[in-house]
Amino acid sequence: MKNVVQHLKVGQVIPTQTIISKQGVHSVESLPLGSCKVTENGHQWVFPLSEHDVVYGLGQSMRGMNKRGYVYESFCSDDPSHTPDKTALYGAHNFFVVIGERTWGLYTDLAGKISHDVGFSDRSSVKLDIEGENYDMYYFEGSYQWITSRFREMIGQSYVPPKWAFGYQQSRWSYENQDVVREIANTMQTYDIPCDAIYLDIDYMERFKDFSTSDTRFPDFETFVSDMRAKGIRLVPIIDAGVKIEAGYDVYEEGIEKGYFVQGEDGEPFVAAVWPGRVHFPDFLNAEARAWFGRKYHTLIDMGIEGFWNDMNEPAIFYSEAGLQSAIEYVSSKQDENLDIYSFFELKDRILGLSNADKDYKSMYHLMDGKRVNHFDVHNLYGYKMTQSAAEGMLAYNPEKRFLLLTRASHIGMAKYSGIWTGDNASWWEHLKLNLQMLPGLNMAGFVYSGADTGGFGSHCSAELLTRWIQLSIFTPLFRNHSAMGTRQQEPWAFDTETLKRVRHFIRLRYAMMPYHYTEYIHSVLDHTMLFSPLARDYDDLRVRGVEDQVLYGQSLMLAPVLEQNARGRYVYLPEPMLLWQVQSVETLSPDTMTLMPKGDHYIQVSLDEVPMFIRQNQLVPLCRPANQVDKLMLDDISLVGFVPSNASYTIWDDDGVHKNYRQRYVRVTVSKYEGQFNVHIETNVHELQTVTLYLMDEHGKVHCVKQTECDRKMTNDRLQDKC
Amino acid sequence: MKNVVQHLKVGQVIPTQTIISKQGVHSVESLPLGSCKVTENGHQWVFPLSEHDVVYGLGQSMRGMNKRGYVYESFCSDDPSHTPDKTALYGAHNFFVVIGERTWGLYTDLAGKISHDVGFSDRSSVKLDIEGENYDMYYFEGSYQWITSRFREMIGQSYVPPKWAFGYQQSRWSYENQDVVREIANTMQTYDIPCDAIYLDIDYMERFKDFSTSDTRFPDFETFVSDMRAKGIRLVPIIDAGVKIEAGYDVYEEGIEKGYFVQGEDGEPFVAAVWPGRVHFPDFLNAEARAWFGRKYHTLIDMGIEGFWNDMNEPAIFYSEAGLQSAIEYVSSKQDENLDIYSFFELKDRILGLSNADKDYKSMYHLMDGKRVNHFDVHNLYGYKMTQSAAEGMLAYNPEKRFLLLTRASHIGMAKYSGIWTGDNASWWEHLKLNLQMLPGLNMAGFVYSGADTGGFGSHCSAELLTRWIQLSIFTPLFRNHSAMGTRQQEPWAFDTETLKRVRHFIRLRYAMMPYHYTEYIHSVLDHTMLFSPLARDYDDLRVRGVEDQVLYGQSLMLAPVLEQNARGRYVYLPEPMLLWQVQSVETLSPDTMTLMPKGDHYIQVSLDEVPMFIRQNQLVPLCRPANQVDKLMLDDISLVGFVPSNASYTIWDDDGVHKNYRQRYVRVTVSKYEGQFNVHIETNVHELQTVTLYLMDEHGKVHCVKQTECDRKMTNDRLQDKC
Repeated sequence: MKNVVQHLKVGQVIPTQTIISKQGVHSVESLPLGSCKVTENGHQWVFPLSEHDVVYGLGQSMRGMNKRGYVYESFCSDDPSHTPDKTALYGAHNFFVVIGERTWGLYTDLAGKISHDVGFSDRSSVKLDIEGENYDMYYFEGSYQWITSRFREMIGQSYVPPKWAFGYQQSRWSYENQDVVREIANTMQTYDIPCDAIYLDIDYMERFKDFSTSDTRFPDFETFVSDMRAKGIRLVPIIDAGVKIEAGYDVYEEGIEKGYFVQGEDGEPFVAAVWPGRVHFPDFLNAEARAWFGRKYHTLIDMGIEGFWNDMNEPAIFYSEAGLQSAIEYVSSKQDENLDIYSFFELKDRILGLSNADKDYKSMYHLMDGKRVNHFDVHNLYGYKMTQSAAEGMLAYNPEKRFLLLTRASHIGMAKYSGIWTGDNASWWEHLKLNLQMLPGLNMAGFVYSGADTGGFGSHCSAELLTRWIQLSIFTPLFRNHSAMGTRQQEPWAFDTETLKRVRHFIRLRYAMMPYHYTEYIHSVLDHTMLFSPLARDYDDLRVRGVEDQVLYGQSLMLAPVLEQNARGRYVYLPEPMLLWQVQSVETLSPDTMTLMPKGDHYIQVSLDEVPMFIRQNQLVPLCRPANQVDKLMLDDISLVGFVPSNASYTIWDDDGVHKNYRQRYVRVTVSKYEGQFNVHIETNVHELQTVTLYLMDEHGKVHCVKQTECDRKMTNDRLQDKC
Repeated sequence: MKNVVQHLKVGQVIPTQTIISKQGVHSVESLPLGSCKVTENGHQWVFPLSEHDVVYGLGQSMRGMNKRGYVYESFCSDDPSHTPDKTALYGAHNFFVVIGERTWGLYTDLAGKISHDVGFSDRSSVKLDIEGENYDMYYFEGSYQWITSRFREMIGQSYVPPKWAFGYQQSRWSYENQDVVREIANTMQTYDIPCDAIYLDIDYMERFKDFSTSDTRFPDFETFVSDMRAKGIRLVPIIDAGVKIEAGYDVYEEGIEKGYFVQGEDGEPFVAAVWPGRVHFPDFLNAEARAWFGRKYHTLIDMGIEGFWNDMNEPAIFYSEAGLQSAIEYVSSKQDENLDIYSFFELKDRILGLSNADKDYKSMYHLMDGKRVNHFDVHNLYGYKMTQSAAEGMLAYNPEKRFLLLTRASHIGMAKYSGIWTGDNASWWEHLKLNLQMLPGLNMAGFVYSGADTGGFGSHCSAELLTRWIQLSIFTPLFRNHSAMGTRQQEPWAFDTETLKRVRHFIRLRYAMMPYHYTEYIHSVLDHTMLFSPLARDYDDLRVRGVEDQVLYGQSLMLAPVLEQNARGRYVYLPEPMLLWQVQSVETLSPDTMTLMPKGDHYIQVSLDEVPMFIRQNQLVPLCRPANQVDKLMLDDISLVGFVPSNASYTIWDDDGVHKNYRQRYVRVTVSKYEGQFNVHIETNVHELQTVTLYLMDEHGKVHCVKQTECDRKMTNDRLQDKC
């Protein structure tokens, strides 16, 4: 297979049936590409799809892993109702790969609106409608793995959070005061549930002012942060895009003084309303303003904060001052009229249409490299640049330290600065499935540190849904339980004792598997690989292209979580024999929970008590003893579970979790077979390593617990004891 | 198993832990029931659920067949966004059956609000919150089949439409004028697609006035109806609940004169607004008003109309006059204020909350048997009584003739008068699955003539979604393709030629299977059986209780349609061996399309070209030659496909399709086996019957085409020729 990256630059009127590269205009015959024509607003590209082609990518979007069959728009949108007909969510990720007769990928570099019609209008083509002419387009040809790696390399090394951010995180809009947060932390301790962070949603602020803390609800914030830290809990406050208009508020005053806010048509700061009421938006596209806002994070960092989540940065607009006045005037004018039904709908639409209106986005202006730029044309850069602002602020604070940084709005290129959560989902089983299906697309766009609001943000969660969701989320780098005001509480103890017990076991399993989670994460980032991947990356049969509810996770695992209400099991397709490991509790690593599953289709029973994992052939999965915080995890006593028909090797990589020198410590376990016996070779520079226990399934399904005396171990540090 | 029906009458304060029956108060020990306590608004009943109990029923509601895990409210609601968190749709169907250690059912007879919390707040109980004390409650114990039959018998024989209503029906909001409708009919002919009816949505009316027809868009309506009839097409006009307030409009004038409209607090007719703008609602709960409105249908029947759909009869209210004035005043009062964010949300909610407001429902009054009754307390009766009005109007017109009658809002007891469509769904794959899952619940509530808007009403449909949806809808009694204004067209020819070809084949299969559809329908109605049933009715293993995407259809078939985008097949669980019949075209009944499937789990390939059906053991499925209208179908040349390990029998029942004397004609086919040979015995009173062809699969999977010469046939009419 030939590997091709072609940079297609469009800068002129393009006749239909040609493609344009940096080298000029080519007829479509010269490259196996589609055609392009000029439209009213920009260009339309059309690429043919073959019968069995599947289309992966487009990051944060609705529908399945295979995007074929619908339309997706790149336009960062705050829309909390994630129904299957929505074309845009919070992120704009214009990269996709087609796997089929030809495997190719396409990235369109534009911060304005693009519509990807993936076999919807016409099942046999992908159609891009690009609003604008000033974009770059990159065409890739090669394997899916090669293309996704090259793309990830091109857009920059993905963000790595501190290691504690791989722990369990608890959130809700809103833990309304210090006492509530302390109570959450205490209850975690009472029930012995591992937890590394509690999030502070908007109510920690004084009147929703960024970088403020409420004197009444969160008094003496620094002490509070430090008290929580003493319990092993980091606090993660939210920062919103809009800056409250309030005389005397430093961020507002400075922004006005320096001209750092997004402007309206008239050159005055644009007035919108979000949580704080009327706000101005910092002009993150202006480098100076970006640096200024980034330094504001230092206020909270100085008080001991090590992580943030940037929200409302599409930017979300509840209404603009101009829009609201116009709507109220319209409604008032109808006061004495006998409204016909269409006038009523018009009236309703005037009010409903106030939020996130294109009209407002088109009235906003940035100062970018000294040039006045209309917001609408660069809309998708806004959240990106806010996040860059925060990241650079932290870098300025301490260039060696990793901070946790999450954002809601995102765009290609931003993944080097932060992770994302998948926005305001709901407690719907459909969104649990969506969570799984979205992961590979997010990874393709560079977002490796990501996860959904576990249990669902909106709507009411049931014990069963939380249980099943956690059975998935223990594998996602961001593992956060978050819910909205007004919905049923969904902390681990919010349901019944059975649920509490199960959830606790699953979270402990998360921590026990940290050597795997962390190793695979760092591998994905440094080597630009997919942490979560469709099966079609590694298996070439047509059948796997239809698999929409299973993913490969790291090098060793395939995941197939239960995604349906009242289900007591599920179907799974195995493209090769695997070890099915059904973990109920990490306290009991028993061969009884490990089953050899032949290639093919299976129905497997999965009770609420157990997490199913599939270990791939000749792969190992390392575990350590669980602890209640990531910092407390040790590599002194490790176990590995593996499926080893012939031989296998796994290198656990570790570091201090705080600084940026990754892969400082390692444990390399190599298993080979000789005359039916497993030989285990261990190499490490981890001084505390004492015990290694291996559960190795052979090709006959027999599990061998390989003890120390059977191992041929070679230690680089000569300290490993014979305790296995 | 004992069979119990217990009538529980509540009419006094009930101490917790007791149940009340007609015979008085019993302690909970005396019957294996739950407990009841008095609440602020009425009563709360709690019934325990066991670990493996499944809960079927509650008619038109979201989520799976097994309702366990969520809350369902009985309050007819016009809410077009059928997301998984919605607790109420258009129908209120307070009947459910628990299958488990004990199999029992419960029906609560109340037209006010009831909440069924089915294992949501507490996984191990069903909790009913009943607003009111004046209700009857019926407790059933026995098998699922017995309970559903007794309940159906109790609520009255379900509605039977004319036979043409089992044909394909085409609809859209709105085929805006006669020319468009004629074009639709002509295109059906051009492409040779069977079709029996075209629906007229609101635009056929003059200014949305019930029983009017637009002189400009639908001039000379009677001739138009008759022209269409000549093409084999019946027109089915919509009738809305609200009567336009317009001087000179007869329905309005008479209603005012006679006092037939729902009143407000002040005793004046209540003013709401729906499609026609300001309307009054006929007081269908007043017997005189009901009879008066019912007679209005005669206007259109006189012009040749034979079917209607009653809409907006929850009743849907866009706004009430009082509500709108109050909201506009509120908004106007904010004109010069600097709104804080909560005031903005309040303003938004005032406008959004105008539609279907409880406040309005609580301000409306009925005259029922001379008594003034608040609408809120009897809300769920409104659509029911409108439909009864229509049905009785038709009965008065011609007591012998069957009319097609559909309604959107519904309630238990209404099923004897009409069918229902499942309301304003969307072109979401999730709604295709919901369609399947809802069918058994609807049948339990008596709604046998029902179906969803095929292809989805709201949102945009893809060729693939329409194709898969039609693969299901060819089995539902109501088979109607309907879509909303502003969405992509979804007539069979609206996509590509491949889709057109497939859809045509599937619709022809629908017509070819009419002997089966009609026989099973009449059986379900006359014998109070489930036309669509969860597998758990007939199979007792725990596994089938988890099957949520397969249903039994009639006596012979199990259906397992493809419900997911881009799927090329699906999993299926067979509780016993079955014949998998994958029909591509009814023109070619080939043994090659028939496969013996053993009991157990299977992945089956299902291309877009084929409809999979599973024929159960020792069952037959009859077919006739397809035609383009139901009226043209003949029983001269019939085929049967069967899976006959030992013996089987099927009786096709038929009648003139117009009158109410069902089961006038029959063909009884009996297959027995002797020394490995099939013996076929045919008994019939159908004079035109000429040819019978049987495709019989034996227990080894071999398909025998049983020809005439091999048959031992005994004819009651001595006319069957040896042409097989």
